[in-house]
Amino acid sequence: MITISTTAEERLAKLGIHLPDAPTPFGAYVPAVQTGNLLFLSGMLATSGHTAAIAGVLGKDLDVKAGREAAYTAALNVLALTKKQLGSLNRVSHVVRLGVYVAATPEFTEHPKVADAASELLRDVFGEETVSSRLVLGVASLPLGSPVELEAILEVRMD
Amino acid sequence: MITISTTAEERLAKLGIHLPDAPTPFGAYVPAVQTGNLLFLSGMLATSGHTAAIAGVLGKDLDVKAGREAAYTAALNVLALTKKQLGSLNRVSHVVRLGVYVAATPEFTEHPKVADAASELLRDVFGEETVSSRLVLGVASLPLGSPVELEAILEVRMD
Amino acid sequence: MITISTTAEERLAKLGIHLPDAPTPFGAYVPAVQTGNLLFLSGMLATSGHTAAIAGVLGKDLDVKAGREAAYTAALNVLALTKKQLGSLNRVSHVVRLGVYVAATPEFTEHPKVADAASELLRDVFGEETVSSRLVLGVASLPLGSPVELEAILEVRMD
Repeated sequence: MITISTTAEERLAKLGIHLPDAPTPFGAYVPAVQTGNLLFLSGMLATSGHTAAIAGVLGKDLDVKAGREAAYTAALNVLALTKKQLGSLNRVSHVVRLGVYVAATPEFTEHPKVADAASELLRDVFGEETVSSRLVLGVASLPLGSPVELEAILEVRMD
Repeated sequence: MITISTTAEERLAKLGIHLPDAPTPFGAYVPAVQTGNLLFLSGMLATSGHTAAIAGVLGKDLDVKAGREAAYTAALNVLALTKKQLGSLNRVSHVVRLGVYVAATPEFTEHPKVADAASELLRDVFGEETVSSRLVLGVASLPLGSPVELEAILEVRMD
Repeated sequence: MITISTTAEERLAKLGIHLPDAPTPFGAYVPAVQTGNLLFLSGMLATSGHTAAIAGVLGKDLDVKAGREAAYTAALNVLALTKKQLGSLNRVSHVVRLGVYVAATPEFTEHPKVADAASELLRDVFGEETVSSRLVLGVASLPLGSPVELEAILEVRMD
């Protein structure tokens, strides 16, 4: 019996996903820092370049569907930055933590549905075995008016 | 001279605390990820099952006392999940970080009093020697309308 | 050829910065926890002692300039606490993560400008080579009414 294991890069290609350019900082920080085998990514917004691709607050300007698009856009930026930092997505052995911060009204309660659009993309690319723990918060506002910001801590293969 | 050191499981029993069932994810994530000797728990809410045990915003619907009950409920979920993940609470050597996210109005200032209900329970169970660093924020809203969400990073005994 | 490398303590002295007393906890937590070579600091506010040095919400009570003063004050507390924990700022090999949490209105978008005041101070003291990844969120409110809270994870030299 032959086991064919698929890599993250192969899954990305199969999904037909074309990654954007990796976001660059707009401030006195760097895109990511690795310590030991943990890579801490800076917060990724729903941006294209230094502009918000989608702006607004969930429960006021945006519905869950628009929020999910923003989360997906931010997750593409996570993938693009990870690839730029590590050379290949195949070097990620685990998504340790995914933080999903959603600009939302006090009455909004459906943050997990918004967050799932990011979680599902990362799962589809990195694989079921690497699925993250997750922290989801509704925040007052985010840089550039982005409705979603993602925080990722990745475990990196060192060999 | 004989030193009798008490374990977390013994302290839990002595406090008469009966842990709830560990929360299960409601989305595309896992309850916890361990990397090296660090265990990252997913955000724990003031839930019983997939329903908020307490809902509302501090400074609007809820006072500090109700917020403390929510923080205590979420901390019970932290303990239940930790026990399920590790088999025994005795395997926790340190609570490295406790994040306490409180749904609050812009005018609310007493977040630390709310957070202490969670910190005190974890201290009483894991012991004075393992007390965490802490991050406390007032957020706009939380999944399911929970007034409190807890984030925990635990250091695990590897022997 | 002689390379003269400057240390963090030397840069601090050269900048003429006098550090305040390190903040002490106002709750059931400790100022910092080290696990392996990572030091997790508790959230640092724009406080002097147990009182907010500056209070208010960005986009309502405070403008970007006042927000930057708050971020700078909180960053001084990060430095003071780090020095107290490690004995010398020279033991920091990297600022792995800087979280900047800004109390802000839903309409506020200039969080990065506020955050930069903290990032720039840490860069000026710890050096260009140690600049952090960064997470910036606009939150509803913060303990004591502080407009800014900082979260830092530092990599520590073990030799």
